Amino acid sequence: MEAQPPIIDAREAGAAVDAVLERLFSLSRKRAESYGPDFVELWSEIERATVGGKRFRPRLVLTTYEALGGEDRTAAAYVAAAFELLHTALVVHDDVIDRDFQRRGVPNIAGRYRDRAVQRGAAASDAEHRGASAAVIAGDLALFNAYRLIDHSGVEDVLRGRLLEVMDEALFASAAGELMDLDMSLHSSAEVAEIVRMERYKTAVYSFECPLQAGALLAGAELRVVDALAEAGRELGVAYQIVDDLLGVFGSEAQTGKTILGDLREGKRTALIAYAARTSAWTDLQHLVGKPDLCEEEAAVARAALEECGARAFAEELVREHAVRADALLAHEWVPQSVRDAIRPLVEPMLDRVR
Amino acid sequence: MEAQPPIIDAREAGAAVDAVLERLFSLSRKRAESYGPDFVELWSEIERATVGGKRFRPRLVLTTYEALGGEDRTAAAYVAAAFELLHTALVVHDDVIDRDFQRRGVPNIAGRYRDRAVQRGAAASDAEHRGASAAVIAGDLALFNAYRLIDHSGVEDVLRGRLLEVMDEALFASAAGELMDLDMSLHSSAEVAEIVRMERYKTAVYSFECPLQAGALLAGAELRVVDALAEAGRELGVAYQIVDDLLGVFGSEAQTGKTILGDLREGKRTALIAYAARTSAWTDLQHLVGKPDLCEEEAAVARAALEECGARAFAEELVREHAVRADALLAHEWVPQSVRDAIRPLVEPMLDRVR
Repeated sequence: MEAQPPIIDAREAGAAVDAVLERLFSLSRKRAESYGPDFVELWSEIERATVGGKRFRPRLVLTTYEALGGEDRTAAAYVAAAFELLHTALVVHDDVIDRDFQRRGVPNIAGRYRDRAVQRGAAASDAEHRGASAAVIAGDLALFNAYRLIDHSGVEDVLRGRLLEVMDEALFASAAGELMDLDMSLHSSAEVAEIVRMERYKTAVYSFECPLQAGALLAGAELRVVDALAEAGRELGVAYQIVDDLLGVFGSEAQTGKTILGDLREGKRTALIAYAARTSAWTDLQHLVGKPDLCEEEAAVARAALEECGARAFAEELVREHAVRADALLAHEWVPQSVRDAIRPLVEPMLDRVR
Repeated sequence: MEAQPPIIDAREAGAAVDAVLERLFSLSRKRAESYGPDFVELWSEIERATVGGKRFRPRLVLTTYEALGGEDRTAAAYVAAAFELLHTALVVHDDVIDRDFQRRGVPNIAGRYRDRAVQRGAAASDAEHRGASAAVIAGDLALFNAYRLIDHSGVEDVLRGRLLEVMDEALFASAAGELMDLDMSLHSSAEVAEIVRMERYKTAVYSFECPLQAGALLAGAELRVVDALAEAGRELGVAYQIVDDLLGVFGSEAQTGKTILGDLREGKRTALIAYAARTSAWTDLQHLVGKPDLCEEEAAVARAALEECGARAFAEELVREHAVRADALLAHEWVPQSVRDAIRPLVEPMLDRVR
């Protein structure tokens, strides 16, 4: 669910969001004390899960808000932090669903609780279940508090109601996408369009569409601006996801920060792979994609086949289409220039990658 | 997490709460249509998980509210429904953590999705994981919407804030209790006091304390009444839980609606069992408690040993103590007689069971 960060400078934005989250976790740990040290520790683990991210969603909220002239930085920081915490909740539960015990190469919440259970003598499968269980609880707490942060932003009633609807839609879409993803894992023959739809629901809506929408609403933008940003967000989110899928196969470790064999070994269902699966190249590819011990040489063969059959070009064209559509939406005369200037830096590097 | 219903008549209350939930699910299904039939179905599964319960928590909210003179039945129905949905969310995720695929003898959400995956050819362990994953998603949606229902109750700002704090505490405590429960499953030597504390956090707070508190707050009761009800709720909740544990071993299927060997076979850690574990009777008991294929005759031996060693009498005395404490809290002169009259019917049948 992760892609490369855009180039918006966001040190200051990050600091305000960090402050909101730090306060939440510090208060929660304090509250947790009366329930015992293990619960205090769970809160530390949730905080740890929010640290080290790129604060990408908060930056979208804040960038949009400020580009539209918003001035209440406290309220904006709360709403931005709410989207970060929603992201944490979804990632933590997504890892449970994917049976992942690591994220970015280090143990995630489930992994840390699993490892502790192993140290305390639990059998491997019990320890894994123990880890996943702790992650279910942690995700619930993060999810609930995402909602709370919107409530604590101090904005007036009607606006609060609208922001809660946006966050509701974020979770709604993400749940729908997660369910689609789950269904696809049972039969591996998903079409490109289905995969793009799944990625849109699962990630693009909550990561792009909703943060842009929330930032615009908070700034009091007129409805057509809010809508254009939401729609542009959806397009950008899909483009971003496909860039991420491309980088997962053709990128370098320096670009992605993760092992470049991961996506191929996992057999991740992407538009790239779905396209290839409809070509004659699939005969050679199918035992490489999803091969758990795929080596560098085999990966090179797979990459060459994905280029050869046109899958790479197809995916790059998909990115271009979505990015161009986003650009067109932002080009409406009634979208303030300031917003275009703030959001376009998100589009350019994406187009660069597929040029 | 279930115990026997109290004797408060609540047909009307139930109908108002049902109406709120039906509306929520009907709207959610409608919204889900654009995401595809599978997502519509997930919402039907969540609704199914809320149906057939005793509406116990909503009844506590409504009974308290009305006994304290509350008259806004719409707001009360929303808040009551929010607690029912919180209960659904917690039960659905608790079943994931307990690896339960049934509830009250029929497949739960995880069980239904597991069974469908099996029908579609998935291997047993993949199908179970698929079921648990669907349940994680379903619980998230229920949890989020519990919060939303408080927001949609239409109460004014300050009160809404207080109600959200109560619901926050409900989840907070339940998460702490669930974590304790998880830790205890790794080492089976928990003390009675620890188990009582775990049951209080995991179930009593969200099932008793918070609904009573919410009902009182909503009715605009003075702080000391709200506090007395909250504290009484905590005591009642613990008493209730221990009664439930007693019935799980000594009750009849007619009383509990579930197989009477279940708790013994599962080796459920209860105050009853923890007490016995400290006596010489444990030598004989320990290979019966937690024996997956325990038969009727062995259960009779276990029951006799639990009586003999004083565990049953001890647990009954615990119930009495907590119920008496609840009674004393309700007896304060400043607690309206109407509230006493409404809540005491909850206490009496509990005391009856251990008389």
